[in-house]
Amino acid sequence: MIKTSAKLSMVNGTIDMSHGAGGRAMTQLIQQLFLQCFDNTYLRQANDGVLLPRSNKRLMMATDSYVVSPLFFPGGNIGELAVNGTINDLAVGGAVPKYLSVGFILEEGFPLSDLKKIVTSMADAAKRSGVFIVTGDTKVVEKNSVDGVFINTTGIGELDDEVTLPQAPQVGDKIIINGDVGDHGVAILAHRENLSFATTIASDTAALSGLIAAMLAAAPGIRCMRDPTRGGVSAVMNEWAEQYHTCFLLNEAAIPTKMAVQSACELMGLDVLHLANEGKVIAVCPHEQIEPLLSVMRAHPLGKKASIIGDVVDEVHPGVLMTSCVGGRRLVDWVSGEPLPRIC
Amino acid sequence: MIKTSAKLSMVNGTIDMSHGAGGRAMTQLIQQLFLQCFDNTYLRQANDGVLLPRSNKRLMMATDSYVVSPLFFPGGNIGELAVNGTINDLAVGGAVPKYLSVGFILEEGFPLSDLKKIVTSMADAAKRSGVFIVTGDTKVVEKNSVDGVFINTTGIGELDDEVTLPQAPQVGDKIIINGDVGDHGVAILAHRENLSFATTIASDTAALSGLIAAMLAAAPGIRCMRDPTRGGVSAVMNEWAEQYHTCFLLNEAAIPTKMAVQSACELMGLDVLHLANEGKVIAVCPHEQIEPLLSVMRAHPLGKKASIIGDVVDEVHPGVLMTSCVGGRRLVDWVSGEPLPRIC
Repeated sequence: MIKTSAKLSMVNGTIDMSHGAGGRAMTQLIQQLFLQCFDNTYLRQANDGVLLPRSNKRLMMATDSYVVSPLFFPGGNIGELAVNGTINDLAVGGAVPKYLSVGFILEEGFPLSDLKKIVTSMADAAKRSGVFIVTGDTKVVEKNSVDGVFINTTGIGELDDEVTLPQAPQVGDKIIINGDVGDHGVAILAHRENLSFATTIASDTAALSGLIAAMLAAAPGIRCMRDPTRGGVSAVMNEWAEQYHTCFLLNEAAIPTKMAVQSACELMGLDVLHLANEGKVIAVCPHEQIEPLLSVMRAHPLGKKASIIGDVVDEVHPGVLMTSCVGGRRLVDWVSGEPLPRIC
Repeated sequence: MIKTSAKLSMVNGTIDMSHGAGGRAMTQLIQQLFLQCFDNTYLRQANDGVLLPRSNKRLMMATDSYVVSPLFFPGGNIGELAVNGTINDLAVGGAVPKYLSVGFILEEGFPLSDLKKIVTSMADAAKRSGVFIVTGDTKVVEKNSVDGVFINTTGIGELDDEVTLPQAPQVGDKIIINGDVGDHGVAILAHRENLSFATTIASDTAALSGLIAAMLAAAPGIRCMRDPTRGGVSAVMNEWAEQYHTCFLLNEAAIPTKMAVQSACELMGLDVLHLANEGKVIAVCPHEQIEPLLSVMRAHPLGKKASIIGDVVDEVHPGVLMTSCVGGRRLVDWVSGEPLPRIC
């Protein structure tokens, strides 16, 4: 009596309005694509709310919607970005990411083959990080009411008792980053604008939870961490400056940046500190724990180029300053306007 | 040094791309609108992930994206719907809703005055239900890349130990609903299609957590509950039939429906059981607990018209049957196609 078994064509099929209508077509899409790719015991509960095990730890929750354009870019796609991005928001807070929800908003006519690629890479990304996609939602809107697909991921993580993040930075602390700045921003922009010289640059999208666990084990005194996504390094530093009434002094020469990224920035008049990163973490660390921290970071695949990029300094006014490569200090300001829309 | 104090105009202002760029404009929007309206100690942590207190209970997580069109409709708007909807997804699972995340995707040019109305009603809805909006995210996309505003809400709830939901329905159990069917669907459709005869119908959007707490206290044996949103009563019943290999027999004459809703359905060739509801709960309850259940429901403002609408019956094949008003039985099928796109 219940006929939900008709097979969707993942090769030539497209999304139509019925896939969001709460009827048989939606059930087919869920069963034949989402459940197959994301399969786990939680998702198989198949209720609107998913029951999760008791936890005796403090919890962390993070949410992000992803609207990146193009959907597929060198180094990744919107799906992988959506999984890694929310994992990273939890990880930089000191949490161990455990569960993700996923909300899709799909455009009528969207190719099922593309959706399958996106969903498959989400499943792979979640698996790599030991995270379960436990519940989801799919909406379909008419052609031109959304640009392809937008994805929300919301995550829950657990915090071990010994984690004391976040703490205010102290004068004398060092600022660390795990590698090259600006790759994701330039990868998207080069792909979008057809800049051939920069097409070798791939997005740095990656889940940082493994690296961060090693960092916290080696340097439990880390004051605070952030992933410099939208708004780049400058946004993270300025937010901290405001939040903690602190002054940071960055050292331009110490900020790891690929040559092609620097060239792209010069050509387009962009500041590399405003560019989004999707696999980077900035940490503020007491100077006495810097050595063990750098050594575990450099031993990790995602931290080979870990560098000290600045100091917490004693100034009257909070803010972000930088010693430039040619000497002299300048103010590192927030991005103004929107140099790179829909970067994540 | 940090200039985030310029005042946004909530009267004539509009969203521009910079409000999603991770810079100063985004910080202004967050501080002057979201933080002001949603204000609570969690949100004030102002980190990407929010730290939540330890809980020794089982947790429930639910997510939903809202794309309803129009954004403002009789009885509510997209914001209220987004808060109530996710609260309800948790409540029908037996959880006490605690925390919500909110993800906005905004169209360039969207009026700040409309956004403020939406955000204000979200704050009110959360407050009414004792739920905290603890973290959020805002993306802005170019004009015509999204239709106005889409909202994702994801919720976390706690389950008391004595809650045993969901259990399989048993032959002899009764099916209960708390009131009139189809109001939300007709409210949206009438507004969209300018059907004057049905303009008195308002959406039933409401948070069901209070009613459901009373229901579980009076009838702890309730087997399972669902809110019949997209796909309506027919989707809930068919999903259960499939999930539990059960047969349900509904009684058409017993299903509470407003006259104007019935007329609208007849005019448009719609089945009221396919229409979305946003303040209704269907419960399957052992017959011996029906009396206390109905009496607490009818004493609650959201359950005045609580009714028994059918039975779990002993048939060979799982499915959903209905005794019609004129006698005879018919099959209650899933909605097919998309009679009511973007209903939630």
